[in-house]
Amino acid sequence: MTRQAVHDHVANNQAQHLEQARRFMAQPSVSQEGQGMEECAALLLKYYRDLGCREAELAETPVFPAVWAYYDAGAPKTLAVYSYFDTNVVGEGWDHPPYDAVVAPRPPFNKVLYGRGAGNKGAFIAFLNALSSIKAVEGNLPVNLMFVSEGEEFVGSDHIPLLIDRYRHHLSKADDAIVAGACQTATGDVTLFLGNKGNLHIEYECSGERWGQGPSGGPVHSSAQPVVDHPVWRLVNALATLYDPVSNRVLVDGFYDGLLEPTAEDLELIDALAQRYEGNEASVLPGLAPGKVDRFIDGLSGRDLFLRYCFQPTMNINGLRAGYTGPGTLLWTLPNAAYCTIDHRLPPDLDPNVCRQKIRDHLDRHGYEDVGMKVLMAVPAQKLSVTDDVARAGLRVFDSWNVKPTVWPRRGASGPMGFFSQMLGLKLLGATGIGYASGHSAPNEFLVIEGDGKVGGLVELEQSFVDLIYSYAAYPNDY
Amino acid sequence: MTRQAVHDHVANNQAQHLEQARRFMAQPSVSQEGQGMEECAALLLKYYRDLGCREAELAETPVFPAVWAYYDAGAPKTLAVYSYFDTNVVGEGWDHPPYDAVVAPRPPFNKVLYGRGAGNKGAFIAFLNALSSIKAVEGNLPVNLMFVSEGEEFVGSDHIPLLIDRYRHHLSKADDAIVAGACQTATGDVTLFLGNKGNLHIEYECSGERWGQGPSGGPVHSSAQPVVDHPVWRLVNALATLYDPVSNRVLVDGFYDGLLEPTAEDLELIDALAQRYEGNEASVLPGLAPGKVDRFIDGLSGRDLFLRYCFQPTMNINGLRAGYTGPGTLLWTLPNAAYCTIDHRLPPDLDPNVCRQKIRDHLDRHGYEDVGMKVLMAVPAQKLSVTDDVARAGLRVFDSWNVKPTVWPRRGASGPMGFFSQMLGLKLLGATGIGYASGHSAPNEFLVIEGDGKVGGLVELEQSFVDLIYSYAAYPNDY
Repeated sequence: MTRQAVHDHVANNQAQHLEQARRFMAQPSVSQEGQGMEECAALLLKYYRDLGCREAELAETPVFPAVWAYYDAGAPKTLAVYSYFDTNVVGEGWDHPPYDAVVAPRPPFNKVLYGRGAGNKGAFIAFLNALSSIKAVEGNLPVNLMFVSEGEEFVGSDHIPLLIDRYRHHLSKADDAIVAGACQTATGDVTLFLGNKGNLHIEYECSGERWGQGPSGGPVHSSAQPVVDHPVWRLVNALATLYDPVSNRVLVDGFYDGLLEPTAEDLELIDALAQRYEGNEASVLPGLAPGKVDRFIDGLSGRDLFLRYCFQPTMNINGLRAGYTGPGTLLWTLPNAAYCTIDHRLPPDLDPNVCRQKIRDHLDRHGYEDVGMKVLMAVPAQKLSVTDDVARAGLRVFDSWNVKPTVWPRRGASGPMGFFSQMLGLKLLGATGIGYASGHSAPNEFLVIEGDGKVGGLVELEQSFVDLIYSYAAYPNDY
Repeated sequence: MTRQAVHDHVANNQAQHLEQARRFMAQPSVSQEGQGMEECAALLLKYYRDLGCREAELAETPVFPAVWAYYDAGAPKTLAVYSYFDTNVVGEGWDHPPYDAVVAPRPPFNKVLYGRGAGNKGAFIAFLNALSSIKAVEGNLPVNLMFVSEGEEFVGSDHIPLLIDRYRHHLSKADDAIVAGACQTATGDVTLFLGNKGNLHIEYECSGERWGQGPSGGPVHSSAQPVVDHPVWRLVNALATLYDPVSNRVLVDGFYDGLLEPTAEDLELIDALAQRYEGNEASVLPGLAPGKVDRFIDGLSGRDLFLRYCFQPTMNINGLRAGYTGPGTLLWTLPNAAYCTIDHRLPPDLDPNVCRQKIRDHLDRHGYEDVGMKVLMAVPAQKLSVTDDVARAGLRVFDSWNVKPTVWPRRGASGPMGFFSQMLGLKLLGATGIGYASGHSAPNEFLVIEGDGKVGGLVELEQSFVDLIYSYAAYPNDY
């Protein structure tokens, strides 16, 4: 009955709750451009204090301040809450100014909230609104909360380990962790990922300077090639030893060592996915824009496709550059350097640092000792099971909403959440809010404010967050 | 005695000759940016008319107008004269405004003429000045001249074949061809290249659109790689089949077929080069900036180095691009396309179009039928012998100036001059003017106006052009 009173409070305070989200989104926080980071951190700090966190502070890092806050409810259970308040750059093509936080129709929705950061900043305010409604009704929260809010997600989350270490005296007492976000698709499907892959991101460099052959200090004219060694060809050949695009296998010795077979639970989840989406895989695979992929590797579909997506490590060239990188060049140079950036998405069984060393050894063995490897990111994976407390607490919220989620063994992408697992041993539950926000990489990013019966609006999003808190606090008892 | 009178005329009219060069250089003509091309063509047309060319006109191309002019002296011999009046872009770092045509000291020279285009536009006006002095003294020229002046050298000289075809009724009567330019190094060495290599320049594309696999219409998220084919890896592997940077050999079947051994004359020239520059090769090899190359391929030096430079075809990656091409990226994409631009410098024995077809066949045989090849340029080589009339006419000018030239069997770089050989059967003599101009790709480009005893100034440059005209007109008789 208390929970119903909180739901009512959420519904009766929508105008104020929406204003809170609008205010936060109106504050730019573009980490890639260093815009508004301090102001946004200060605003979030104020919100944590308003909520009643007695310990709350800016947590400086060498780049942008994070925010640490601790709500000590005196409750038996403690949740760590990871969030990020920076956003992608704005870009072109907006119908509404990206910081005006305009509320307008967007069929089929009567009301959505437009603005850069709607997906993370907007939805996180919904979570804080949900907590404030609980407090308004109850005077306290049923769980202790430890908030780690970073401003560096879009520049690599480099300082999450530092933040975890700094607050380890508190965080070591957390029982579990969550990310608060909306989890529906545009058509109202609910998706839950039981963790995510890790990420190893490396920039390779082959240069005359490192090699001691070929041009150094700048390019020479291409006509000198008969007598001048070529760093670009060298990089091309080094890369060709690393990966085979025909078998789609990493060729580095031992790279797959330790890779575990899917568990029985994994296979059950995969079968359910295949049953639900066979023939329609492109519509649910994360990271695919509509119409961009007609045919999958080896003609895969269904079960095999989902297995491959979830359980195979990757070696992806996402950038390649040497010499003049414009189209149709008529510049003729023999470049002194060539670069390639490669990211690996690694299942939890493969350690990013071990993989890095195997690649280094492989290059050395093949005579490429001089090829440089600069680690841009090394983030561990994280994984939870449907039998873990925090997962069960989340899943039974879906039950109470009569929602049948699509549960993936893991997401193929990555994030800093793995540090919470690796450094603190925490299980982390991904986004479970009943609502929908568009992607953060496009113009006209939005959060649905008034749902359409399938997709939740701000009321449903906040109420489902309320339920998650009560469900987790009570687990394994009913809530 | 007539020639001495012309030399005196050159010396006595330096103020006016310098002004003429300054005026032409003050007119920007940056083809890559489309700046001033029409105005510069119109100015050059006026100069040809002033010289007394009764046939002179703008020669329109689909890009920028060229200038055609014919001076019919009623003489027994006819020279075609190739030139280009466009320049490189200006860039940063100029001490003097690039279109002010400032005359100032530059040690060891008391006077140089600074400005973009000093090397080609400045030196070509010196050639026209030389001709006008001959006319002033003699009332006519001793040879007929057919001028082909293009404005597209820096954008690929695409329309030289069209211009040759348009004026073929005249050009087919030419006996030989020349390029009028300064040929000294900064220290006064005189270099003559007996032709140049051809150029085949290709842009390769591997894309989901062409392949029918992988992403098309844009990138997808890199986490989708377990199930999405990868155009960048495909391009890397296709490239690795083409060239071996260890043996420094093109791996395309039959690529070297038809490559001729150096002739006895070639070997004599190479031996002379080696004798003169053994241990100091980097100082004379064209295309090497100071200090950029410490060690040549396979530790080559002397004779072997010069042989390799002159007689081996190349396969040079000058640009490679895929995905995000900035440094240290944290963007994660699986790109839908990857590109590579490769230029080949080809000795006259290798036809650019035949080489292109061999590469196409190679890729097809290796299963890369979908890898696109777009020809950006295909220019034939050109070659002359020290026994050819126009070469002998040029070399004996050096003798009369007591200059011992460094004669190379050919230059490793390329230009559109090969079209004059290929389409008209002409032998083309490269730059022979006693003078020095700095490169066209740097700031503070200049032409020496007052020499230092080793390097010629404007007087010597023009007088040596006068001598070339008389030497050629009289050949094989004394001049």
